[in-house]
Amino acid sequence: MSTESAPRSERPYDTSQLRSAPSLVMVNTGHGKGKSTAAFGTVLRAVARGWPTAVVQFLKSGNWNTGEEKVCRELGVQWFSAGDGFTWESDDLDESRAKAVAAWEFSAGLIAGGEYRLIVLDEISYAMTWDWINAAEVASSLVSRPEPVSVILTGRDMADEVIEVADTVTEMVKVKHAFDRQIRAKKGLDY
Amino acid sequence: MSTESAPRSERPYDTSQLRSAPSLVMVNTGHGKGKSTAAFGTVLRAVARGWPTAVVQFLKSGNWNTGEEKVCRELGVQWFSAGDGFTWESDDLDESRAKAVAAWEFSAGLIAGGEYRLIVLDEISYAMTWDWINAAEVASSLVSRPEPVSVILTGRDMADEVIEVADTVTEMVKVKHAFDRQIRAKKGLDY
Repeated sequence: MSTESAPRSERPYDTSQLRSAPSLVMVNTGHGKGKSTAAFGTVLRAVARGWPTAVVQFLKSGNWNTGEEKVCRELGVQWFSAGDGFTWESDDLDESRAKAVAAWEFSAGLIAGGEYRLIVLDEISYAMTWDWINAAEVASSLVSRPEPVSVILTGRDMADEVIEVADTVTEMVKVKHAFDRQIRAKKGLDY
Repeated sequence: MSTESAPRSERPYDTSQLRSAPSLVMVNTGHGKGKSTAAFGTVLRAVARGWPTAVVQFLKSGNWNTGEEKVCRELGVQWFSAGDGFTWESDDLDESRAKAVAAWEFSAGLIAGGEYRLIVLDEISYAMTWDWINAAEVASSLVSRPEPVSVILTGRDMADEVIEVADTVTEMVKVKHAFDRQIRAKKGLDY
C-alpha cells in the first residue's frame, strides 16, 4: 500500500510521475459557501507544519468578532484587516477604495518579502471586480513571488488574470443555503 | 451600519426577517477541492466558541500524519478514525465495509448522544455510494438529532437522502488543479 497521496478526493491515480512544487497559488471562488472557510482550513495545515502564515482581510465581516480570527491569532497566524476594512454597507466609496488599495499594497509587500510561507488574501476579488486594484498587477505579483511563498485568494468572480496564473482553482457552488429559508448566520458555524 | 450579518459571500440582504436555527446540517460535496478543508475551517469557528467538537474520518488519508488532525487535537477536538480507516488501495473490501459500518454506528451514537455541538463526518459519502451504510438511515439520524447538534458531512456524490434533509449544501467544482499538471499533494497545504 502506497503512502504517496493524491489530493484526498482525487484518488486513485498513478502517483509515480508526480513532481513537487515549492509553493502553490490557490483560488477559492464561486457564489457558494466555503471559500474563506476552506482557506482557514488550509491555514490549520500550514500552522501544523510550522509555516509562518498571514491572513489579509480585504472585506470586513459584519461580524467583527469572528471565531476564525480568534483561533488563528492564538495559533500564531498574523492577521491583518484592511484599515478598519470596508463593508457592503459603506456609503463612502472613496474611503473603501483607499482601504482596498492600501490592503493590496500591503499584501504585495508581504508576498515579495518572502517572510511568510502561506498568505491568505481573503475576499480580494471584489476589489478587482470594482477596478480598485489592478488584476494584472495582482497576477504579476503572484508569478514573481519568492519560491517558497504559497498564496490563497478568495472571493466571488475572481479576475481571469488571477485564475490564469493559479495552480488550483475551485468554484464553490451553492446547491442550497439555510439563508434562503431566512435562517440567520450562526456563531460557531458561519463566523 | 448593521452588525447583523448574512453569510460573508451572500450580502447584502434584508436581515430583519431572519430567524435563528439551534443547529444546522451542512454538506460539502462535489469533485473539487475544499470539502474537508472547509469543514476543518468551520471546526475553527466552533472551537473558538467553546463548542465540544468531534471529527469522524470515514476514509483514511494516504497521508496518515495530517496537519489538520495534529492542530485539531491540540485545540481539543475529539478525533476518531474508522478503525484503521479504509483506503482506495485496500484489497479487502469486506474489511473496509466492516470499518465503514462501525464508523457509522459510532457516529450515529455521537449524534444521538448530544454531547457534541459540532460533528464532522468526513468523507462519509463513499460509504453510502457503495451501499455499505444506508443513506435513509443517515438522513433519519440527522433529522432526529438533538436540537443543539450541528453536523457537517463531506465527500463526493453525496446521497440524495442526505442532500434533502441538509440546511446548506455546497458543491466544490474543480476549475483546475495542480494535480493535473503532475504536481503532488503538498504538505502544509493539502494535508
